Amino acid sequence: MAPAKITNQAERAFNDQLSTPQIPSNSLVLMAFFMEKPTLPKGTRDFGPVQMNRRLKLLDTIRSVFRTYGFQPLETPAMENLSTLTGKYGEEGDQLLFRILNSGDFLKDANQEALTNGDFKKVSASISEKGLRYDLTVPFARYVVMNQHELAMPFRRYQIQPVWRADRPQKGRYREFYQCDADAVGTDSLICEAEIVQMIHLAFTKLGVKDFKIRINHRGILSALAAMAGAEGKEGQFFVALDKLDKIGTEKVLGELAERGISGPQTQKVMELIIAKPGNAVDLFNKLQEIFNDEGKRGINDLKEVYRLLGDHAGSGSLVFDLSLARGLSYYTGCIFEVTISNVAVGSVCGGGRYDNLTMAFGSKEKLSGVGISFGIDRIYDALEELGLFGTDDHYGTRVLICHFDERTRDFAFGLVTQLRSAGIACEVYPDVAKLKKQLDYANRRGLPFVLIVGEEEMTSGKLTLKDLRSGTQQTLPVELIAQTIG
Amino acid sequence: MAPAKITNQAERAFNDQLSTPQIPSNSLVLMAFFMEKPTLPKGTRDFGPVQMNRRLKLLDTIRSVFRTYGFQPLETPAMENLSTLTGKYGEEGDQLLFRILNSGDFLKDANQEALTNGDFKKVSASISEKGLRYDLTVPFARYVVMNQHELAMPFRRYQIQPVWRADRPQKGRYREFYQCDADAVGTDSLICEAEIVQMIHLAFTKLGVKDFKIRINHRGILSALAAMAGAEGKEGQFFVALDKLDKIGTEKVLGELAERGISGPQTQKVMELIIAKPGNAVDLFNKLQEIFNDEGKRGINDLKEVYRLLGDHAGSGSLVFDLSLARGLSYYTGCIFEVTISNVAVGSVCGGGRYDNLTMAFGSKEKLSGVGISFGIDRIYDALEELGLFGTDDHYGTRVLICHFDERTRDFAFGLVTQLRSAGIACEVYPDVAKLKKQLDYANRRGLPFVLIVGEEEMTSGKLTLKDLRSGTQQTLPVELIAQTIG
Repeated sequence: MAPAKITNQAERAFNDQLSTPQIPSNSLVLMAFFMEKPTLPKGTRDFGPVQMNRRLKLLDTIRSVFRTYGFQPLETPAMENLSTLTGKYGEEGDQLLFRILNSGDFLKDANQEALTNGDFKKVSASISEKGLRYDLTVPFARYVVMNQHELAMPFRRYQIQPVWRADRPQKGRYREFYQCDADAVGTDSLICEAEIVQMIHLAFTKLGVKDFKIRINHRGILSALAAMAGAEGKEGQFFVALDKLDKIGTEKVLGELAERGISGPQTQKVMELIIAKPGNAVDLFNKLQEIFNDEGKRGINDLKEVYRLLGDHAGSGSLVFDLSLARGLSYYTGCIFEVTISNVAVGSVCGGGRYDNLTMAFGSKEKLSGVGISFGIDRIYDALEELGLFGTDDHYGTRVLICHFDERTRDFAFGLVTQLRSAGIACEVYPDVAKLKKQLDYANRRGLPFVLIVGEEEMTSGKLTLKDLRSGTQQTLPVELIAQTIG
Repeated sequence: MAPAKITNQAERAFNDQLSTPQIPSNSLVLMAFFMEKPTLPKGTRDFGPVQMNRRLKLLDTIRSVFRTYGFQPLETPAMENLSTLTGKYGEEGDQLLFRILNSGDFLKDANQEALTNGDFKKVSASISEKGLRYDLTVPFARYVVMNQHELAMPFRRYQIQPVWRADRPQKGRYREFYQCDADAVGTDSLICEAEIVQMIHLAFTKLGVKDFKIRINHRGILSALAAMAGAEGKEGQFFVALDKLDKIGTEKVLGELAERGISGPQTQKVMELIIAKPGNAVDLFNKLQEIFNDEGKRGINDLKEVYRLLGDHAGSGSLVFDLSLARGLSYYTGCIFEVTISNVAVGSVCGGGRYDNLTMAFGSKEKLSGVGISFGIDRIYDALEELGLFGTDDHYGTRVLICHFDERTRDFAFGLVTQLRSAGIACEVYPDVAKLKKQLDYANRRGLPFVLIVGEEEMTSGKLTLKDLRSGTQQTLPVELIAQTIG
């Protein structure tokens, strides 16, 4: 804990001099009392130890995959200028930005006319210059624009940070949540797409997920399908309906399309094409190449190259070419991806694709094509939990508690934890002299895997009783074997 | 990169249905153009790849130390209710809170009278319910109060997250910066103090810092000294002056004290006591015990016990009993710590101490004593950089770039990176077919340690040229030896 804020003038000077606020002046003045039980802002969460250890395991795994693939870490500030954020997410997005009140007397620059008229948007613009980031993409684009002359291209970055949205909170939807993105920009090479498939494969494999699908499609292919179905000028509506295929089935999709004036034998034929499950993606590519327009052919050529590059390498087996996959289409221009885990009802856990120009929104003239992927951390967490993949043996937490009976045995126990810690074992000595039952209760409440009990006899013999709290079994071990047994 | 926000009604519905905003709706609408070059809010920073890899190394090291000592991770939301934050940091602290404008039409609940009077504080209270956390201590206390019945005591938590302060930005002082705290609450055992000394020792040793001091003192000792010096009722002023001893010397400290009415032979005598450098802390403890009041004796007894527990264990050698160490005294009640690194001018890099009651500010009746430590990440980063301890060989980044000459050799290179990645090596293939010079330039700009060059000959022989870009040397190796050479 950091030291207290000192309030009177002299003490403030002392405090300032001692160090900058980064270290000491961050703390409680205990004069203030709150008698009401504190609460969390709605839509936000604490991550306590059990969840955190699991989240760290999850994030460390994904981070190590990004690292292996040459993606470099980036962190940007939580606060961005509103001029950076607004206009990038549509009108609805602008309204979901959390805005930060200007410091000091913000009223003196407030738009008086807007205040009089009750125009809260204009007032807001005059009393708030900064907002909390809404995603990681706009800060990434801003970073690239600000550093374009220093960055070696192609630039691969990953970023794992929270974002904030003033959305209505509901189950599984939070106002603060992590995004976990990786993007490679500055190259059109389809090697990037192949690597993304491999990264996804490696990440889920490392997390212990066996049964998952990496669905792939292409913007060009979707455009060709829309053209063939007679949905020119109604692409968006065509894709909205198409994307429901898994949930509502062919008939209902055709019904929806008809309501929107997309119908006829061609529409029917396209739908048949989409639902046909070919034995082999390459056969389907060849078949489609004959009937597609130029945009469609471009899509097929890209996918063929991705499949060729992957060959028999890891990842290719999880890849599923899915003509009905349609993601955020106003943005993606090439391959698109989406990942689902079988047998869990959490929806898509990962998605991304290729886009034409990352930095256009910031007026950059240089066209910066890229491809990116976003891991849905909260959903992956839920899926791993549902599949029991976190396990009970938490190697991120304490492995053993050393219990004792009195000051003498506690001293011995303290020497022992010191020794085990030198061997890299995460361990604790119960700090107070207390009844053994209390110490064991503590270990059980914490869900620790092991306890060691130090009595007079153990001190003399140098042999200790190691109790496995999960199985209930115990064994007697010389000190030097403990580390390897529980490590 | 996450997919685009789709703006028209039908497409929005599609987007909503596809998944919650956690995954897809976070992105750019590329319709909006910004012709001005974007900037960062003042007092904030981006952490680019080089800095981030170093920061990750630093934070991973400290995290692993916390873990080894049984401290458990906690994360709390960036936003807290203002009712949680205000009143905890003094009036000045309240003014440094970043406040978040309420969502939607915040004006309709605005305090009209205050608006008319231009009372920005009252207006602020009526249009803003949430703020950004100012430190990690208040959120920790809030978490403990909200979860006190579920937490097994003693509770050891660590927390590494950014905090925000609307301070005037200046060199080394940011509006967003990380804090890195560990606290053990719910026990008075001095084993916790001994463990904190060991943790600090382990952390700096792991970071490669050889020459550092862990200064220790005690609130009881400081109180006794103040009483002896005739500074009753002026403790704060006494400590302000005392803490300057290192910088301004004895004479000036005595002068400052005299200005504040603290003078005379007793003051002189106390100063002599403070500046005496005893050969041995234990001898000094014994000497002081004879002359101190009860508070001072309590302090000496605590320190003696910490020294006794540490014995010859690692950490004891770095410990320096320093009578002039005076940290945020309105808060600490027992041992206090501060760490300095020799030969770098960054000031204190770590500090903490024991306090009586963590949750009193939230009206908790149960007295929750604890001891905590805060690592000053930014300063430690600067110190490590100054001492050259990050090294040039960045094991957190890409180890090797594989270069090639055409599509055929690039395909081979892609197979090779796939193979190296399976062996856990972070590597890249240059994704485009490009001149070798361009590929090598990229590797040099990135500061990569190695490149491998794949030509027709290498493909045939299976022997590759590995070039060490730092030394300029190169060697020819069979594929199967590459991983172990560069790993």
